Amino acid sequence: MTMRFFSDNTGTAAPEMLAALSKANHGLVPAYGSDAWTQRLDDCLSTYFAAPVRAFAVATGTAANALSLATLTPSYGVIFAHEEAHIANDEAGAPGFFTGGAQLSLLQAPDGKVTKEVLAAALDAHPASVHTTQPSVLALSQATELGTAYRPDELGALCKLAHDRGLKVQVDGARFANAVAFLDCHPGDVTWRAGVDVLSFGATKNGALTAEAVVFFDPDLVRDFELRRKQAGHLLSKSRYVAAQLLAYVESGLWLRNAQRTNTLAQQIGRAAGDLLMHPVEANEVFLALGQERKRALRQAGFEFYDWGSASTGQTRFVVSWDQPEEDAPALIAALEELL
Amino acid sequence: MTMRFFSDNTGTAAPEMLAALSKANHGLVPAYGSDAWTQRLDDCLSTYFAAPVRAFAVATGTAANALSLATLTPSYGVIFAHEEAHIANDEAGAPGFFTGGAQLSLLQAPDGKVTKEVLAAALDAHPASVHTTQPSVLALSQATELGTAYRPDELGALCKLAHDRGLKVQVDGARFANAVAFLDCHPGDVTWRAGVDVLSFGATKNGALTAEAVVFFDPDLVRDFELRRKQAGHLLSKSRYVAAQLLAYVESGLWLRNAQRTNTLAQQIGRAAGDLLMHPVEANEVFLALGQERKRALRQAGFEFYDWGSASTGQTRFVVSWDQPEEDAPALIAALEELL
Amino acid sequence: MTMRFFSDNTGTAAPEMLAALSKANHGLVPAYGSDAWTQRLDDCLSTYFAAPVRAFAVATGTAANALSLATLTPSYGVIFAHEEAHIANDEAGAPGFFTGGAQLSLLQAPDGKVTKEVLAAALDAHPASVHTTQPSVLALSQATELGTAYRPDELGALCKLAHDRGLKVQVDGARFANAVAFLDCHPGDVTWRAGVDVLSFGATKNGALTAEAVVFFDPDLVRDFELRRKQAGHLLSKSRYVAAQLLAYVESGLWLRNAQRTNTLAQQIGRAAGDLLMHPVEANEVFLALGQERKRALRQAGFEFYDWGSASTGQTRFVVSWDQPEEDAPALIAALEELL
Amino acid sequence: MTMRFFSDNTGTAAPEMLAALSKANHGLVPAYGSDAWTQRLDDCLSTYFAAPVRAFAVATGTAANALSLATLTPSYGVIFAHEEAHIANDEAGAPGFFTGGAQLSLLQAPDGKVTKEVLAAALDAHPASVHTTQPSVLALSQATELGTAYRPDELGALCKLAHDRGLKVQVDGARFANAVAFLDCHPGDVTWRAGVDVLSFGATKNGALTAEAVVFFDPDLVRDFELRRKQAGHLLSKSRYVAAQLLAYVESGLWLRNAQRTNTLAQQIGRAAGDLLMHPVEANEVFLALGQERKRALRQAGFEFYDWGSASTGQTRFVVSWDQPEEDAPALIAALEELL
Repeated sequence: MTMRFFSDNTGTAAPEMLAALSKANHGLVPAYGSDAWTQRLDDCLSTYFAAPVRAFAVATGTAANALSLATLTPSYGVIFAHEEAHIANDEAGAPGFFTGGAQLSLLQAPDGKVTKEVLAAALDAHPASVHTTQPSVLALSQATELGTAYRPDELGALCKLAHDRGLKVQVDGARFANAVAFLDCHPGDVTWRAGVDVLSFGATKNGALTAEAVVFFDPDLVRDFELRRKQAGHLLSKSRYVAAQLLAYVESGLWLRNAQRTNTLAQQIGRAAGDLLMHPVEANEVFLALGQERKRALRQAGFEFYDWGSASTGQTRFVVSWDQPEEDAPALIAALEELL
Repeated sequence: MTMRFFSDNTGTAAPEMLAALSKANHGLVPAYGSDAWTQRLDDCLSTYFAAPVRAFAVATGTAANALSLATLTPSYGVIFAHEEAHIANDEAGAPGFFTGGAQLSLLQAPDGKVTKEVLAAALDAHPASVHTTQPSVLALSQATELGTAYRPDELGALCKLAHDRGLKVQVDGARFANAVAFLDCHPGDVTWRAGVDVLSFGATKNGALTAEAVVFFDPDLVRDFELRRKQAGHLLSKSRYVAAQLLAYVESGLWLRNAQRTNTLAQQIGRAAGDLLMHPVEANEVFLALGQERKRALRQAGFEFYDWGSASTGQTRFVVSWDQPEEDAPALIAALEELL
Repeated sequence: MTMRFFSDNTGTAAPEMLAALSKANHGLVPAYGSDAWTQRLDDCLSTYFAAPVRAFAVATGTAANALSLATLTPSYGVIFAHEEAHIANDEAGAPGFFTGGAQLSLLQAPDGKVTKEVLAAALDAHPASVHTTQPSVLALSQATELGTAYRPDELGALCKLAHDRGLKVQVDGARFANAVAFLDCHPGDVTWRAGVDVLSFGATKNGALTAEAVVFFDPDLVRDFELRRKQAGHLLSKSRYVAAQLLAYVESGLWLRNAQRTNTLAQQIGRAAGDLLMHPVEANEVFLALGQERKRALRQAGFEFYDWGSASTGQTRFVVSWDQPEEDAPALIAALEELL
Repeated sequence: MTMRFFSDNTGTAAPEMLAALSKANHGLVPAYGSDAWTQRLDDCLSTYFAAPVRAFAVATGTAANALSLATLTPSYGVIFAHEEAHIANDEAGAPGFFTGGAQLSLLQAPDGKVTKEVLAAALDAHPASVHTTQPSVLALSQATELGTAYRPDELGALCKLAHDRGLKVQVDGARFANAVAFLDCHPGDVTWRAGVDVLSFGATKNGALTAEAVVFFDPDLVRDFELRRKQAGHLLSKSRYVAAQLLAYVESGLWLRNAQRTNTLAQQIGRAAGDLLMHPVEANEVFLALGQERKRALRQAGFEFYDWGSASTGQTRFVVSWDQPEEDAPALIAALEELL
């Protein structure tokens, strides 16, 4: 028997999602976003964030991130991001391609979280002249790649510093729901109230088939985005099917229910791991310094998970999916307790 | 009452498609194309084309076309295409963006079909030196943007000429099924047997939710494509849901059933239009030179359709969707007969 | 004996240019444009144009054009230009590369000159939506590729139309001096007074070693340009040597003297050509419909010149260089008179 | 009185260079590299390197580097370079722009020199999948940005490792002559014999007006380069003037004479600096940890030099120009001795 903790991308779509597709599947409607579902996205997400926003559906998180970044930086710009960021490691150079060449400047800080001090130091050290790349964007992840979450005041301080230095702030929210569920805050508290300019609002990992929204808190950036999205092949012709997923995801409360469940399971696993735990568990990911022997033991016991970084480090990542079978987490917990 | 002939993108998804999604919606499976559905795409489409192919799922036709073109031309290349081509008029400059700057050279020829003579003349007239763009790709559409279809021998002659002159051949098959249905040929006859290098195999317009496949008949081009697809945000994490649509589309015979129905209805409309018909009806599109008065009359009667080109020309396009209500085509035919 | 009428790029540098280099060749001075010569460029060209301008030295006309265009259009933009334009035919796709994918829309009109009517028709015919490329720039050449010159009022009308439709106007002035010399007008009359936004001010063809200036009449566009120039490797470290050429070119009156000489010789040749003349001679180029027999005769007599377009048309181009030997033009005139 | 140690870009052109320009300044010759000077470049540099090479003139080092890199990496590639590399810090993002988005992966190692161990570790740590950027190029500088030089065997080991891992090797040789002069080796020993694929062979800093050559030791890469160079506006129309500089630079022995002089003066300064010296002096650059007080003292005494990195570190760079006045180095040495 295998218990799969590879990634939340391995999950199915929630029943609410398929129901939304079926419900949307009636009648001829205008294409390319002029349908009633897509037209309701702005309202739906403005209510969700308690602020007027513009929201655009796309099919992948890479598209959401890279298209956002392209509206925020010229080709001679620099994007500051944590060295563990998805845009740096897992998107095959998408930021460079979409921006026409912008470079990433990678920051080191504990637990996947950029700190104000680290950002300030990087900006101070970045020479500024016609010969250098121009600081343009601070790109954060919420929750982070290491399963941690920025508190509203941490985010506010980072955004203030970024804006003071002329940067825009983009947030990769592939696991945004997990962060909000953990922080037990309002979605607005970790976006526009903190100063975020653009958010990739993910739904795929948390129960959708394939649906992400790019949410702009600054409407001036929107026209350029719309044209870039089309040019990059990310404007869907039958847009209703992605919009319907996003609407149902938000309006049914699925976003929070699923995130709460996976967070809870992850925290239980984290607690069972004792000193093996590498980072606080503030989302649905658990990072464990298992070492080679324990890795082998768990894999032989049927647990599937990724090495984190090189296999030789013995470090690993476990991700809880929204539809993780009920018995998987207790089994992993029991196995960990036995190993300790 | 409105009868909608705007576009086949206005249609719903076929029941077979939603059934395929439901059926795929079980269990945790590897992400990013390592699932069983995606892994079966090559086999499924190799059988379909009766040749070994490599097939890659993407969500939009623009992505399929532009990613293909990017594997076939350097940034200093030229893509030859008919002046009515989708890549020239309806993709917001996607070919230029994906290729890093390649230019389109647009060809004029009747009924949306590039001819051997026109292509040869364009190639002869294109200066060749280090100062000029380099002829790289012949990009065709099958069926064409004007609802016509290349015969296998026409396509073969074009491919031969292109290859002789050092060009690769890419085909936009957003309505590939309609062309094959009209020609009553084998899918291989208008692809690899004729010399086509890469095909955008469309399913969305003909009954899928959102599913296209890029089909390579030359495996050497594949690695570059895979990396470009990921970099462009077009590798879907939950790939099974697009792959499942494509498999069902082909294996259930939906591709042909739907295309036959829409072709038949379009031909009936075309016959009713008499001298107003602008191009042969060889797919699911009917182009009519209605003039202002007839346009007004049809719109008042509840028919929705696009002006083709500037409104002042009086030219129009009607597209039959796979789920066009049964009564729409007869109603349009009756209305046309009354107008004539 | 050969008499070379291939191109003005075959010419030498004028003595004034080498003298300027020698004069600048003293002492250690700041690099990358902070030297006294480069710092004086704005003033020099502001005086020349009788308006406050910002001027930037680059080494080639292709760089001047493509960098200018990149500041004026997004990657999803369209640049309208005459089908004979240098940017369309002789720069290996530079506009596409520098802009990240912008497309050229090529206009047909007599004698290489875009007309208001042709531009208006092209803009009217260009569909405008999120699916299409966005009209961004009108790119003209002064003098044109066919050796003709826009009158101030023609240029003014084109600029007004372009601006009314939201386009910027860029002018390729590789032979700007020839146009001004022919029109006998003030340089401002065919630039800012007519509404031109950016000019590639060429000196290389007219006597410099390698020196062009990009002249902005709208200072808001300048910062982006400076960064793009550096990023494209077109900011010269020892900038003084290009700036010194440009200063001497303008301040010594060389620009006008050389242009007047080559214009005069070209006009004499044009007059001798009678009905063979294809376009009015308004710069230093003469286009002749010689036919195969006369081509052969002239080449056997030692005249070197390019076929214009395909050799089979019998059409040819003769360009007078600023340092064309005194005897070449009379010899060509005599040869032509003999042939007629 | 000021003594300028800012940069070797502040220097003049050597008399040999102006003489070469004058000598080339006769007669109408074919443009764009078909002239006799440019045609002789391959032979001249093949002799210089004692191997068949293809050599291409460009006007700037940034162009030489970025165009080379663009021939060696796709847009989804990674270029490994030392964190002090010119391409990383001083070219405004040129590598990203020219390659269409490739990213830099910056390596830390003492004295500006990439080590085999550091490169191996970086390659081992770089995840390799369709989700990641693809290791493509090792970009080195010889001499390095910190004025040190790779020994032939060091370079050979780095090239071997790079090739074994599928990377090409590009070398920024803006100060190549200084490295060869210091190593007292044959130019081939630190290029093709060590395994270098492409070299930016700089002449500007060492006495030319503006002239660099891109030297290919692998002829297969050449056609793509030629087209990219033209497309990027780096093919000079009056090519003879850059080629003539390069020919004279090599054939007159100027390259070695100038490098030997500046190296010698730099070494004398370095020796006088005692413990303030930060890196071995193996070219014409001296890095000194002066601290704020000594900086102030030297500047008040008329010495001009750059802070290296942030001014607060007290670290500084002194560069000796080929035409540095005879009295400058002794004056600096005396001033340093007084300060110690």
